[in-house]
Amino acid sequence: MLDLRSDTVTKPSDAMREAMSSLAAADVGDDVLDGDPTLAELQARVAAILGVEAALWTPTGCMANAIALMYHLERGDRFLAPAGAHVLEAELGTSAWLAGGLPTPLPVRPDPADVLRAAGGASPYFGLRSRLLCLENTHNAGGGAVTGVGEHTALVEAARSAGLRVHLDGARIWHAAVALGVEPSALVGDVDTVSVCLSKGLGAPMGSVVAGSAEFVAAAWRLRKMLGGGIRQGGVVGAAGLVALEQIADLAADHEHATLLADGLREQGWPVSTPDTNIVLVTTTEPGPVVGKLADVGVAAVPFGPGVRFVTHRDVSRADVETVLERTAGLPVP
Amino acid sequence: MLDLRSDTVTKPSDAMREAMSSLAAADVGDDVLDGDPTLAELQARVAAILGVEAALWTPTGCMANAIALMYHLERGDRFLAPAGAHVLEAELGTSAWLAGGLPTPLPVRPDPADVLRAAGGASPYFGLRSRLLCLENTHNAGGGAVTGVGEHTALVEAARSAGLRVHLDGARIWHAAVALGVEPSALVGDVDTVSVCLSKGLGAPMGSVVAGSAEFVAAAWRLRKMLGGGIRQGGVVGAAGLVALEQIADLAADHEHATLLADGLREQGWPVSTPDTNIVLVTTTEPGPVVGKLADVGVAAVPFGPGVRFVTHRDVSRADVETVLERTAGLPVP
Amino acid sequence: MLDLRSDTVTKPSDAMREAMSSLAAADVGDDVLDGDPTLAELQARVAAILGVEAALWTPTGCMANAIALMYHLERGDRFLAPAGAHVLEAELGTSAWLAGGLPTPLPVRPDPADVLRAAGGASPYFGLRSRLLCLENTHNAGGGAVTGVGEHTALVEAARSAGLRVHLDGARIWHAAVALGVEPSALVGDVDTVSVCLSKGLGAPMGSVVAGSAEFVAAAWRLRKMLGGGIRQGGVVGAAGLVALEQIADLAADHEHATLLADGLREQGWPVSTPDTNIVLVTTTEPGPVVGKLADVGVAAVPFGPGVRFVTHRDVSRADVETVLERTAGLPVP
Amino acid sequence: MLDLRSDTVTKPSDAMREAMSSLAAADVGDDVLDGDPTLAELQARVAAILGVEAALWTPTGCMANAIALMYHLERGDRFLAPAGAHVLEAELGTSAWLAGGLPTPLPVRPDPADVLRAAGGASPYFGLRSRLLCLENTHNAGGGAVTGVGEHTALVEAARSAGLRVHLDGARIWHAAVALGVEPSALVGDVDTVSVCLSKGLGAPMGSVVAGSAEFVAAAWRLRKMLGGGIRQGGVVGAAGLVALEQIADLAADHEHATLLADGLREQGWPVSTPDTNIVLVTTTEPGPVVGKLADVGVAAVPFGPGVRFVTHRDVSRADVETVLERTAGLPVP
Repeated sequence: MLDLRSDTVTKPSDAMREAMSSLAAADVGDDVLDGDPTLAELQARVAAILGVEAALWTPTGCMANAIALMYHLERGDRFLAPAGAHVLEAELGTSAWLAGGLPTPLPVRPDPADVLRAAGGASPYFGLRSRLLCLENTHNAGGGAVTGVGEHTALVEAARSAGLRVHLDGARIWHAAVALGVEPSALVGDVDTVSVCLSKGLGAPMGSVVAGSAEFVAAAWRLRKMLGGGIRQGGVVGAAGLVALEQIADLAADHEHATLLADGLREQGWPVSTPDTNIVLVTTTEPGPVVGKLADVGVAAVPFGPGVRFVTHRDVSRADVETVLERTAGLPVP
Repeated sequence: MLDLRSDTVTKPSDAMREAMSSLAAADVGDDVLDGDPTLAELQARVAAILGVEAALWTPTGCMANAIALMYHLERGDRFLAPAGAHVLEAELGTSAWLAGGLPTPLPVRPDPADVLRAAGGASPYFGLRSRLLCLENTHNAGGGAVTGVGEHTALVEAARSAGLRVHLDGARIWHAAVALGVEPSALVGDVDTVSVCLSKGLGAPMGSVVAGSAEFVAAAWRLRKMLGGGIRQGGVVGAAGLVALEQIADLAADHEHATLLADGLREQGWPVSTPDTNIVLVTTTEPGPVVGKLADVGVAAVPFGPGVRFVTHRDVSRADVETVLERTAGLPVP
Repeated sequence: MLDLRSDTVTKPSDAMREAMSSLAAADVGDDVLDGDPTLAELQARVAAILGVEAALWTPTGCMANAIALMYHLERGDRFLAPAGAHVLEAELGTSAWLAGGLPTPLPVRPDPADVLRAAGGASPYFGLRSRLLCLENTHNAGGGAVTGVGEHTALVEAARSAGLRVHLDGARIWHAAVALGVEPSALVGDVDTVSVCLSKGLGAPMGSVVAGSAEFVAAAWRLRKMLGGGIRQGGVVGAAGLVALEQIADLAADHEHATLLADGLREQGWPVSTPDTNIVLVTTTEPGPVVGKLADVGVAAVPFGPGVRFVTHRDVSRADVETVLERTAGLPVP
Repeated sequence: MLDLRSDTVTKPSDAMREAMSSLAAADVGDDVLDGDPTLAELQARVAAILGVEAALWTPTGCMANAIALMYHLERGDRFLAPAGAHVLEAELGTSAWLAGGLPTPLPVRPDPADVLRAAGGASPYFGLRSRLLCLENTHNAGGGAVTGVGEHTALVEAARSAGLRVHLDGARIWHAAVALGVEPSALVGDVDTVSVCLSKGLGAPMGSVVAGSAEFVAAAWRLRKMLGGGIRQGGVVGAAGLVALEQIADLAADHEHATLLADGLREQGWPVSTPDTNIVLVTTTEPGPVVGKLADVGVAAVPFGPGVRFVTHRDVSRADVETVLERTAGLPVP
């Protein structure tokens, strides 16, 4: 089975496994009591790459986003996020019941006017206070769509003018930076908090990082303990994270493979998106049967809103994509 | 100042004040310990009018809706509601942080296909479980729009086919029933829970009622105590509620007055909605200045999304509406 | 049935009913939009009596306490309260799940050393932050026990030295003041927030007040709306509250009646507390049967921890107490 | 510095590091999508050892306990736990604000009568519903005290007779089993849910397991995702967990070392507990200075309530304990 359901399925690379095993000779510590030195190094590296003051490792991206939203939001606050955002659809509602915010969805690809309009709400005398704009770059529900530097800056400026803070779900910010040919910090520097993922395209076995000001990270440390993310000898997974950061440039290959896949499917007549990065969406009102037929020929994909999603990643080679296309050639067009 | 900001401003009628004072001779009790007999009578009357098993008085409509949503929803649940719904905009996010639901807004006037689509969500493997459809009839953000019996039934059927429960925010269900010339029960019978308001158009000094099955009301009693709504000698306000129920038919006059107001404003060139009931919306991108100019000539209205809202009610007479129109005649058209 | 279960059962006095009905000639308003003038007067009167800046009416004491605790506490905070406190036992856990605090019970009658010890917690590196001391005067679980001015001040000073804020549940602060012969402000002035009840001994049909700084009351207004306590034409019940405040001195009679009852029961051999105020506790490991036998002879009392509670109040006369004692004379001693 | 602050500081053993690195040849998978095979094996092994149906890996013991309490408790529920329990003191109040329970502390070493009394509460008409007994074996605040099989069974029976469910915080259940010379399942079989730790005495770099019925584990899987514990390629840490389970018998040495330490300190005149397992408590009202003086001579311990705690563990040898005693010999007796 060729697994294109998500880049979460990537397995640790040889370099990563080597780094983890070489910890036999390295230093680990209790990250709740004193801080684990390898995690500390990882956190400092991520903060430097993102151009922010400080960073904190978390077991998952869900926890990274939950911590940021718990920090920003209180009961009675409204937050804005693009339709289909991970914080709306894929985190079991923690943005609402745990962080305390009432979400107002924006269009999948919002512009500054959308932000201003939604921040105003239905009527100010109803009492909700608009507090936060959540962005997502690349945007999963938008098919891995990249928000460019100018577009990002304009959205952040709109948020500021409406008195909003900004959190960026940058789980795949690496993909955006590689696609645009810019440093990740160019897409991050002006937000209040940002989360990034080491485990999706970059292939670490687990782990995300949430980052921002030093004051935020101190609060986040406490929130992480509350949620049960205060692990002990984190160096073991931190070592893998350090290797993951070396693998950012490799994502360019995933993007090429996604384009190859999309072009091939389109030639076969499939109604397919033009990928910015490593996500290919097929439009269909019957995603279940399409996924079923793909599985029958050994291709794993997932139902995704009114469609089907393929994700290319480091464990999918160009040859694998070609094999996928050979197999889809024999299927009915959705 | 002629106050058309909302029908929440209605003051107790003479009959209501008389009923409340005549409680000197009547029976009140401790509603937390044994039940207050006047509240019990009110609750039974509302249940009968709505055609449901049981009902519970609450101090406000916010609490009535919060109780229903706390009953239906758990962490990890999604609920659907029309854009601008009271549970989304006017209850300080309790549907999310208190009841635990992640809201997905539908169009202001949803159809069954919208319900089915939103209940599916972005991707089932993300884990949110669609649980509840919240309807609102009449719909405030829709300009007091009435959902007809057939339309209501079709929405409820769509919800059932998607495995959803249904809560109806019927704060102004009385207006819908009067406008349609049907019994309120025709618009309520097939839902799981419903809230109605005694204090808006019907003029009681305070109080709403939340209703449904006997099992729901037993749970609601406990939830009401949690939220601080377990009042003691409620008969005093219960008596006013009983009078309020006698005043339902009077709402027809409010609807005539709203139409009179809308027609008059339209003749003066205002961009105004055609009211189904007692709410008149004026479209303008600058609601603040319009409200300010209205106040200058002694007319109170409220900013409302991208517009201005007027609400006619039992303390606004036909002559009052004519006075409003005389005053607006001198204002610039928004 | 002579009802001594609680002073919550008191019914509106004639003066109160008259005040409420005379509102026909008075002014009421929408307390959510502009403030109701009668409620505003009530709130100002309570603030003056308590010697604090500002006050806010709430439908119940549960909501008053919940608002104060939501204001003071966050996730990760510890609060201290005497064992059996209303905020621990009688509010369905809102102090914990809603306000966010982890309660640490003190002795029923704590001294300053208890406060200091509990504020330290098991180990500071576990992360809980001690934030709040909740006092209760008179203390219900302590049998209506009065905390004197010096004792109160010492507890507040201990709290301050441990960096804690102080909330006083003063539902029956009127009883403490009357018993001590001091102004209520002498028992309140140094706390951050205080709740008082108009509906227990003072006999209003419903309503409590939560009070503190002007900044607190602004936040409390918003919290009250969240919880569904933002009523509309509150003047109707506000008028009753104003009469209730005139009835404070009457409580002295209730205290005399409680002493009469306790003395009489003791003479009959009952194991009975010596009341400070209007609560009489009988110690028994079998409260259920004792309450049952009392009910058989027309006396209503409630099971209360390992005992039975009687409460004297304005609807229980000296003659009523004598009748109770005649009836208990025929019962087996618990 | 000899580190006796906690057994959380234990570092991965050589066998563990080898197992983790040998995963280069082994299978890992996405534990959110399909389940990671190594984690699945670990979970099955733990369930078998504990004698329960099913088990779920979590990053920390805080998350394991939080999941169990979220499963058992609702708003309005009371739970009982021994004073100083980890769920009360060391989890930032999640049992209260997240799981929704109002805690009622029992004595540090409760007996069945304590359970029955506390389950009754102050007065049933106040509305709190007693729902859960949390046990902790060994009990950290009790100085690593072991609850024997008969004592455990009697507590569980008392809970059942009061209608309570039972959760066991068995972070150090391994120590209890080793000290008693029984299988862990003898101390677990009759509870509803249990959490165990792989990372304290057993030395895994991270990870706990929460276990119970298959129905519980299905719900727990969802709750873990909510809290941000749904990691991806968990096999890497699962492998370490499998080795940890092989190291249970080694704990006997830690117990011997604790006794050696306690005996030595007692001979030096220290007011010291008699350890059941691997925790030694020194009683002192000034823990801060004592910890400071220990640090000055290269011995790390922690302040712990009114005292100081030492924990022996696999990275502390008999020779290390002897060194500690040589160093404390020169210190003033606390």
